[in-house]
Amino acid sequence: MRLTRHTDYALRVLMYLSAEPDRLASIGEMSAAYGISHNHLMKVVNALVRAGYLTSVRGRSGGVRLARPPETIRVGEVVRMTEDSFRLADCETCRIAPACGLVSVLDEAVMAFLAVLDRYTFADLPEREVDFLSIFLPPSEPVPAD
Amino acid sequence: MRLTRHTDYALRVLMYLSAEPDRLASIGEMSAAYGISHNHLMKVVNALVRAGYLTSVRGRSGGVRLARPPETIRVGEVVRMTEDSFRLADCETCRIAPACGLVSVLDEAVMAFLAVLDRYTFADLPEREVDFLSIFLPPSEPVPAD
Repeated sequence: MRLTRHTDYALRVLMYLSAEPDRLASIGEMSAAYGISHNHLMKVVNALVRAGYLTSVRGRSGGVRLARPPETIRVGEVVRMTEDSFRLADCETCRIAPACGLVSVLDEAVMAFLAVLDRYTFADLPEREVDFLSIFLPPSEPVPAD
Repeated sequence: MRLTRHTDYALRVLMYLSAEPDRLASIGEMSAAYGISHNHLMKVVNALVRAGYLTSVRGRSGGVRLARPPETIRVGEVVRMTEDSFRLADCETCRIAPACGLVSVLDEAVMAFLAVLDRYTFADLPEREVDFLSIFLPPSEPVPAD
């Protein structure tokens, strides 16, 4: 069971930008930070701009930032938007679908899954003790050999 | 978000056999009934035999049937066995994983998903009013044109 890469990257972008909501970040910066495809990230960022999650600022020192405070963006709403489908099995082509009790059970399980994600916002996520953005920085000095 | 085809087919086999737990069904019968690949279904059935869910009887009138009563087989345990992974995002290669608050949130959502599936057994599933196995039968008489 897996989320699409589109969802994975959308969550990463929102986490990245939630760490410093007022700063503009470029797609290049985020693509380098995560080590993921610039092109794919651009599509994800464009979708998030269109959906009203990000504001895009053009120009040399441009970039994107959150269009809403991170504490108002729920993980569940983003996953609902970015996933193509929550039909977990191939029921469309299955001949027993009209009599299948599994369809409603899977739906109930997906609802429980999303209900958990609805309880968290992007202000809740980067909450570990490690400073979130510092992970992307190279070590300031080489670690002594001994 | 989707289950693997392996899980999808495993659930279908167990539903099919749960409808008449004492009858032997061949892979050919189930493959024809669902309109799905015989080869793929054979792999799934072999995995279910190895895992102790099915008993296989060899010979001309052989086939498989449930090795345990359907009311003792929980949907959750089957899905746990047949899914390769419940790592919903590509955290293995992600540089922020050590500081990422999302990992535990996704894990919590997966636990809630599986907890629902743990509440249902294969005796609970084919519970609709339609007779489950009758779906696979052709109509006994052609419907009159008028």
